[in-house]
Amino acid sequence: MRGGKSLAAARLSAVPAPPAEYLRVTYDFSCAPGETPEARARDIAVEQTVELPLQCVPAEIASRFVGRIEAIAPLGDARWRAVIAYDPLLLDDVVPQLVNLLFGNISLKPPVKVTAIDWPPSLLARLGGPRFGIAGVRALVGGEDHRPLLCTALKPLGLSAAELARLCYRFALGGIDIIKDDHNLANQTTAPWRERIERCQEAIARANSETGGSSLYFPNLGVGSPALAEHVAFARGAGCRGVLLSPLILGLDAVHWIAETSQLAVLAHPSLSGVFFRPDHGIAPEVLCGEIYRAVGCDGVIYTNVGGRFDFPEVACQAINAALRKPLGPLRPAFPVPGGGVDVRRVRHWIDLYGLDTILLIGGSLYAQGDLTAASQRLLDTVRAHCQERVTGGAGG
Amino acid sequence: MRGGKSLAAARLSAVPAPPAEYLRVTYDFSCAPGETPEARARDIAVEQTVELPLQCVPAEIASRFVGRIEAIAPLGDARWRAVIAYDPLLLDDVVPQLVNLLFGNISLKPPVKVTAIDWPPSLLARLGGPRFGIAGVRALVGGEDHRPLLCTALKPLGLSAAELARLCYRFALGGIDIIKDDHNLANQTTAPWRERIERCQEAIARANSETGGSSLYFPNLGVGSPALAEHVAFARGAGCRGVLLSPLILGLDAVHWIAETSQLAVLAHPSLSGVFFRPDHGIAPEVLCGEIYRAVGCDGVIYTNVGGRFDFPEVACQAINAALRKPLGPLRPAFPVPGGGVDVRRVRHWIDLYGLDTILLIGGSLYAQGDLTAASQRLLDTVRAHCQERVTGGAGG
Repeated sequence: MRGGKSLAAARLSAVPAPPAEYLRVTYDFSCAPGETPEARARDIAVEQTVELPLQCVPAEIASRFVGRIEAIAPLGDARWRAVIAYDPLLLDDVVPQLVNLLFGNISLKPPVKVTAIDWPPSLLARLGGPRFGIAGVRALVGGEDHRPLLCTALKPLGLSAAELARLCYRFALGGIDIIKDDHNLANQTTAPWRERIERCQEAIARANSETGGSSLYFPNLGVGSPALAEHVAFARGAGCRGVLLSPLILGLDAVHWIAETSQLAVLAHPSLSGVFFRPDHGIAPEVLCGEIYRAVGCDGVIYTNVGGRFDFPEVACQAINAALRKPLGPLRPAFPVPGGGVDVRRVRHWIDLYGLDTILLIGGSLYAQGDLTAASQRLLDTVRAHCQERVTGGAGG
Repeated sequence: MRGGKSLAAARLSAVPAPPAEYLRVTYDFSCAPGETPEARARDIAVEQTVELPLQCVPAEIASRFVGRIEAIAPLGDARWRAVIAYDPLLLDDVVPQLVNLLFGNISLKPPVKVTAIDWPPSLLARLGGPRFGIAGVRALVGGEDHRPLLCTALKPLGLSAAELARLCYRFALGGIDIIKDDHNLANQTTAPWRERIERCQEAIARANSETGGSSLYFPNLGVGSPALAEHVAFARGAGCRGVLLSPLILGLDAVHWIAETSQLAVLAHPSLSGVFFRPDHGIAPEVLCGEIYRAVGCDGVIYTNVGGRFDFPEVACQAINAALRKPLGPLRPAFPVPGGGVDVRRVRHWIDLYGLDTILLIGGSLYAQGDLTAASQRLLDTVRAHCQERVTGGAGG
């Protein structure tokens, strides 16, 4: 658990053993002129909990609920790292309050970054995590476990539902495992949502019946509360086995509710997440997209890959991968889904770099080939061959 | 409408007249080495719409749905301002897609900032805006229109529902207009949500019956979809006339749905909003908290005031005030609610600076006085006296 746990562990002998049930959050920050790191950490611990000058807070509440500063250490370059432990009672199992507690008000204060979370296993158990996880999603698409899965997106918006369904059919014929809506597909009059879901799902079922394959269509559920419940029910009724959601736009609690109750696999889209990723302020990508998204139930998490049109740092990509797959209490591991410019020509590279428990999201470089079925089939052949070569020692990686 | 409209207007003679119905968004950005501002603007216009290389997009769709670059102008300091016009059909009236369109994917690209929106009046009409607005909220609390309203927060979390209700009663006896929950109050076992709402609402009704006043209690609805609907119904059933919501945590669509359907006034909390406010990346505070929150239905918008513990720049505070109150299609004006360290000792200053159509959110400096009823009464007296003096010319401002 990176900085958080090791730092906490390093100091634990010097402080009273905290209850097993604390939620520990690691914050990195710098100090204003004249401000001590202790004062800054205390300000965070108060702001995120009782939000009052401590002289106005009953002693019993202050001692129980104000964040407990467990460790402060220099990071160099005039920056500091503090571990603050919160009583999980502050959260109960309420997902919106998790976001409030981690970063709500301090988002408005001088730069501070959440760089690690040490989760109490009981909180993870209550949140529940992915319903399917890596093994479950593999089972949904036919059970091949010796290669990464392939995903593509239906676009551009502006196409009719029939045209989107035609794309869906052609990708499925070519063997793409998961064909998801573009996250911009909402309820445009060019492709109203019910018609889009029905036609795309019908197209994929037809392709599967022709190929004997198990491709899946994941519609984007682009509405918030409470219409979302109707969209979930409709997608399930149409036969979909998973959905695409934008957690930061719909709210993490909506994602959690779908993961918990719908029996649909959840693929998270990164729309809007970039606001969290500045170097000195926000939530580290592996914490937000790796741990938090996984904890609330995402079975796969799309992120913008290094070398693509967003050019995320490779270290961030690998950190997200690791966070989604690592042991984390009782949670199932979830699929990393690099996208945003993953090119078919470099697919071997990404397999070698990221390993098999990955879903490769490939869009533009398939569309650019014109014949989507042939392009998809070539891609799948390349992936299978490369993974086979890796096993037999013929390729690097 | 600041940069957006004036820039668009300045160049309109040079480009074909766009349809009346375009949604115009002003983006400020810098360019990578060797990148032209035209190329950067085009990248934004494509990324936020069709998300494919243009050679893969049918010409008819590209011409209709790719953002149309209407103007590009230098801002100095190697920065540029572009106005991009989007067909509102991209949105329909779907709130989550508004967020996607404005900033979803480009949040993950190099720094770019939404600095203005020129809204088509028909889109504003469909969104609906505040149900109550400034006049409506004033009517709810008794109709005084010659002074700012006063708001305070129930805290700290950790208190029981009975203790929170006692605070509520004491503030209401002192004449505070709106007594809202702390945004951290969710469903902690110390104060389960149903009990909290019932007891606080009962306390305020009791205080009102004793004073003849019209104080209101706004509970925090701290859950997402679909449980939110149950909380809304419960709050209404208990007699509440308004609620506190955190739009960025619950999702803007949840806020919109409550504003549209619940007949409850909506007060927006700024939790998490700071991630949008870096100087070169995000959405300008007056656009996010002023225009977008107002468009989706917030009757009052809390922001972190200059000079308080968050120390927002005064220019941002005034820009939010202006955006909430200005003419904006058919939308009612909404209340600015400066908070986060507004001190009772400086209340005259804030009235002079911000004017009467403001709700002053004052917490810590009331709590610090111990006797909450007396402190509230003194504050209200001060406010009334100062506003009276302003009318009779006895005070500056």
